[in-house]
Amino acid sequence: MSFAQQDSIMIRNIFDKALNEGKAYEALTELCKDIGGRLSGSKEADEAVVWGKEKLQEFGLEPVYLQEVMVPKWTRGEPEVAHYAIKASKKPFDLAICALGGSVSTGIKGINAEVIEVKSLTELKDLGEAKVKGKIVFYNRPMRATIISTFRAYGGAVDQRVSGAKEAAKYGAIGVLVRSMSLKIDNEPHTGVMRYGDAETKIPAAAVSTLGAEELSKALVLHPDLQLYIKMSCKNHDEVLSHNVIGEIKGSEYPDEYIVIGAHLDSWDLGEGAHDDGAGIAHVAEAARILLEVGYQPKHTIRVVFYMNEENGIAGGKKYAQEASTKNEKHIVAIESDSGGFTPRGFGADAPKEFIEKLKSYSSLFEEYGLSYFGKGYGGADIGPLKEKMQTPLIGYIPDSQRYFDYHHASTDVLEVVNERELAMGAASIAALVYLLDKYEVK
Amino acid sequence: MSFAQQDSIMIRNIFDKALNEGKAYEALTELCKDIGGRLSGSKEADEAVVWGKEKLQEFGLEPVYLQEVMVPKWTRGEPEVAHYAIKASKKPFDLAICALGGSVSTGIKGINAEVIEVKSLTELKDLGEAKVKGKIVFYNRPMRATIISTFRAYGGAVDQRVSGAKEAAKYGAIGVLVRSMSLKIDNEPHTGVMRYGDAETKIPAAAVSTLGAEELSKALVLHPDLQLYIKMSCKNHDEVLSHNVIGEIKGSEYPDEYIVIGAHLDSWDLGEGAHDDGAGIAHVAEAARILLEVGYQPKHTIRVVFYMNEENGIAGGKKYAQEASTKNEKHIVAIESDSGGFTPRGFGADAPKEFIEKLKSYSSLFEEYGLSYFGKGYGGADIGPLKEKMQTPLIGYIPDSQRYFDYHHASTDVLEVVNERELAMGAASIAALVYLLDKYEVK
Repeated sequence: MSFAQQDSIMIRNIFDKALNEGKAYEALTELCKDIGGRLSGSKEADEAVVWGKEKLQEFGLEPVYLQEVMVPKWTRGEPEVAHYAIKASKKPFDLAICALGGSVSTGIKGINAEVIEVKSLTELKDLGEAKVKGKIVFYNRPMRATIISTFRAYGGAVDQRVSGAKEAAKYGAIGVLVRSMSLKIDNEPHTGVMRYGDAETKIPAAAVSTLGAEELSKALVLHPDLQLYIKMSCKNHDEVLSHNVIGEIKGSEYPDEYIVIGAHLDSWDLGEGAHDDGAGIAHVAEAARILLEVGYQPKHTIRVVFYMNEENGIAGGKKYAQEASTKNEKHIVAIESDSGGFTPRGFGADAPKEFIEKLKSYSSLFEEYGLSYFGKGYGGADIGPLKEKMQTPLIGYIPDSQRYFDYHHASTDVLEVVNERELAMGAASIAALVYLLDKYEVK
Repeated sequence: MSFAQQDSIMIRNIFDKALNEGKAYEALTELCKDIGGRLSGSKEADEAVVWGKEKLQEFGLEPVYLQEVMVPKWTRGEPEVAHYAIKASKKPFDLAICALGGSVSTGIKGINAEVIEVKSLTELKDLGEAKVKGKIVFYNRPMRATIISTFRAYGGAVDQRVSGAKEAAKYGAIGVLVRSMSLKIDNEPHTGVMRYGDAETKIPAAAVSTLGAEELSKALVLHPDLQLYIKMSCKNHDEVLSHNVIGEIKGSEYPDEYIVIGAHLDSWDLGEGAHDDGAGIAHVAEAARILLEVGYQPKHTIRVVFYMNEENGIAGGKKYAQEASTKNEKHIVAIESDSGGFTPRGFGADAPKEFIEKLKSYSSLFEEYGLSYFGKGYGGADIGPLKEKMQTPLIGYIPDSQRYFDYHHASTDVLEVVNERELAMGAASIAALVYLLDKYEVK
């Protein structure tokens, strides 16, 4: 494929708009500071839906509408308490913890028990009931620092958080404490989803800061019989009604064929969900605004989707795909931004080989903007159901990943750790990709 | 050139060392927190020399020695004061300013005058003495946000800071105020060098925060006759003795042929000189340490140089090149890290075409670490004299540039804005490059 000079000019215009008079950072500021953390089912999530609809209208999309979706509701309750006691000292040692999303509470009295440290689910299994029963299991395998993509490092450690409680309960554990999914050693606990699945017994699950994990591990060497106390009042409630927010730019030639760009509107309750995934929301809204601003008339309908409930259920993504499938809507491609607001590095596609080759052919147009990776990759959690239901090709936006897990799901994921330029460049990259996909009809 | 599998393995080892047990961040922490800002000729710069020598010894280099160099000494004095008054209001409006490095003081009474805003030295010239005489010239051309490399954007605006006072004095201005060289709109003034050259009259020169610049510009539209007051007690002193710090790993085959890796030890007095250029110091010291740690025996002598006085004179770089030239030392290549501690993106060479081709041929080995740019580029201010004197090929380390000028020369350039992983990856990238250059004898 050879690209016309007008493509270079269009992409330059897109970046100029984003960098000179971009609105992504302003949008993110509103989402972070006027609303803040917005867990599914919360008042803040409802506010985010209202904000999202107004924002897409303000940005010129038409129509903008809501799609009903039932979402799980979990509340953290009172601030969590954790400390461990050793026999030699009267004063207990505090640990910075937070309940994992979906966990049951410890009851009002908390739990108090000896601790068994493991590095993996396999090690837990090997220890078995004899060593685990009645104890709190402490999962302490760090993310591997030597893996350059921190998302891969996360993928290699997160089984402890997701399945740790379910597995530990099988051997009679009374609770689990999981090292936070972060490569940074600090005192911030990072929450995230955990699942009981078909567990017969639901035991409470918390994350401990990486610093706390290191301290506890050292203390256990010296005092294997130390007693750990954890108190959490988190709670699972009935499902509640929430919404995906959808806005469109109607296609001139193929109005019934869709290019979807999306991100998730919900976030964890700690922090402001700035990188996860406020940045993605700002990216995709701004990408659509810029396409309108530069006067591009798409051939296909561009649909911006703010998915609800990525963090603990993917209910929004599933609902969107279900509706699209029921209506037999033709989806050309679905793009997601859910990897933070950092400097753009490229795009990865979860799609047939020919589609990936087409994506690769765009790379020279992005060279001067610093994007160099165009190839195979992960799409995104919210758009995954579109591939399952309708074989839609998926594309994930890939920003620099080095700092992402420093903030991910922690109280430090706030506006101040997002850089305005880096965010703007992400929005421009997505707008440029949508322009190319629309113009060159990748189907 | 085809690269042996052992090169891949060596580079993997280098990155593993940097990411698993790196010491770059610890070194930077000492430099930033135990010493802090270290302008040439200051007590802190002297402390940095002592620290640097000890650090290279601790890291296993041998010998480690100092090279005497005379450096300019300039002191900021009391905190600067600036405010503007409009006739309609009794209360003056404060501006966040800082003296530019090398500026004369305003005298104890300060200066008070009307302001003439210009966007360029050309505009100043066009206005001429009639419009400029007796006034303070306010240079307010922003760095261009649309230029993706922020270093290029800086290069396109910094003439106002460097030459603004000299040029304004020609038309009878009594002082200059320059918009800070930053793309971020905030209230931090950014210092940096200014030069009087052969100016007959030396007038005081200050930087104003970008926010202050925007406010002043708006005020001038409404009140063109507003009065600006500036007071600064900065001072130029006689030159003083300082030092470059040099450490070596002796080459096994060509001990008299040198691969130089360097950064500058001095910094501006505001902030801690964390990205500029503490990060570079940490990079090159750590790169040498890692090469020793992985047991690599270089064929050529690896010389680590901490240059003194990059910020306001390049005296260290000039002295180093002078000595190298006098002794007729064969320098194979000189590498500099002076673009911050951000995620590595590549290397640029200021060297003959064949050398650049050789550099390009290494790029595939760095792909999995995210470095994609290997080609023509800028070397570095401290190593520039080596090229001038001895035609040494120069290589500059290129990290992501998006955030660099948010902190550059401002009080916000502190340890906390450097990410440990990104810093470590920079050190590993430089170590890997040195390994390849040494092994494949680029001459």
